[in-house]
Amino acid sequence: MDILHRVGIKSSPAEVYKALATREGLAAWWTSNTQGQSKVGATLQFRFSAGGAEIGGFDMKVLELHPAELVLWQVVDGPAEWIDTKISFELRRSGEHTIVLFKHQGWKEPVEFMHHCSTKWAIYLMSLKSLLETGKAAANPNDTHISGDGPD
Amino acid sequence: MDILHRVGIKSSPAEVYKALATREGLAAWWTSNTQGQSKVGATLQFRFSAGGAEIGGFDMKVLELHPAELVLWQVVDGPAEWIDTKISFELRRSGEHTIVLFKHQGWKEPVEFMHHCSTKWAIYLMSLKSLLETGKAAANPNDTHISGDGPD
Repeated sequence: MDILHRVGIKSSPAEVYKALATREGLAAWWTSNTQGQSKVGATLQFRFSAGGAEIGGFDMKVLELHPAELVLWQVVDGPAEWIDTKISFELRRSGEHTIVLFKHQGWKEPVEFMHHCSTKWAIYLMSLKSLLETGKAAANPNDTHISGDGPD
Repeated sequence: MDILHRVGIKSSPAEVYKALATREGLAAWWTSNTQGQSKVGATLQFRFSAGGAEIGGFDMKVLELHPAELVLWQVVDGPAEWIDTKISFELRRSGEHTIVLFKHQGWKEPVEFMHHCSTKWAIYLMSLKSLLETGKAAANPNDTHISGDGPD
């Protein structure tokens, strides 16, 4: 089972790729606490916080990096439901825009947490779009909250 | 294949249900051009516009209505990929919040349009959340655009 999303960003594939394939880019729209290296075979560590306390995170092994075209990760640490799932961002130019096709593939069950992550990915992809179009984004811990009953 | 989402709304299940199970409620957060009746066996017509022109829509047969608990529709007209798919909103109280579990079930293929609709549903569910929490929403034609290369 997969989470799928699509956004169009008024920017070039090269610029969008930079935001997806560099530590600094990822820190700007996803979570400010991003460590590690965006190199094939290396691992990136994403950590999230709320109210000043760390609430969890994910370690991603970088499987593929194709400039201006594709970023592919595999989850190697994090919530049990995420382990071994794969996350990809495919880029393609469409006029003045770059289309981002996002997939978070390999969920075993459609658990409530998958519903949550699907919505939250949409919110973060809008943060990516905003970063490139306006220079302002909403990376954790300044992310848009969707739950109310939990930290995010 | 299913699109799944989850939001938590600071409101009661009865109030959230009202926004999902009445024509006026749906018009406030999804599309202002909502016609028909929210009654089991009846059909609701949702139409969307951009730049003053209608860009399409969906007709939904209301299959189930359980106050403060569930709304279930079946798509009877609209884009080919949507025909016969089912859309459900399950509600449950969690402290001061109502959890909305959303499912758009029965997509035959993970086409690019499914990616788009997944992201757009998240945006509209945030409009629903905003309606109930702040009184302000972003129903079509004042919806948040996600594509850039198309009307929505």
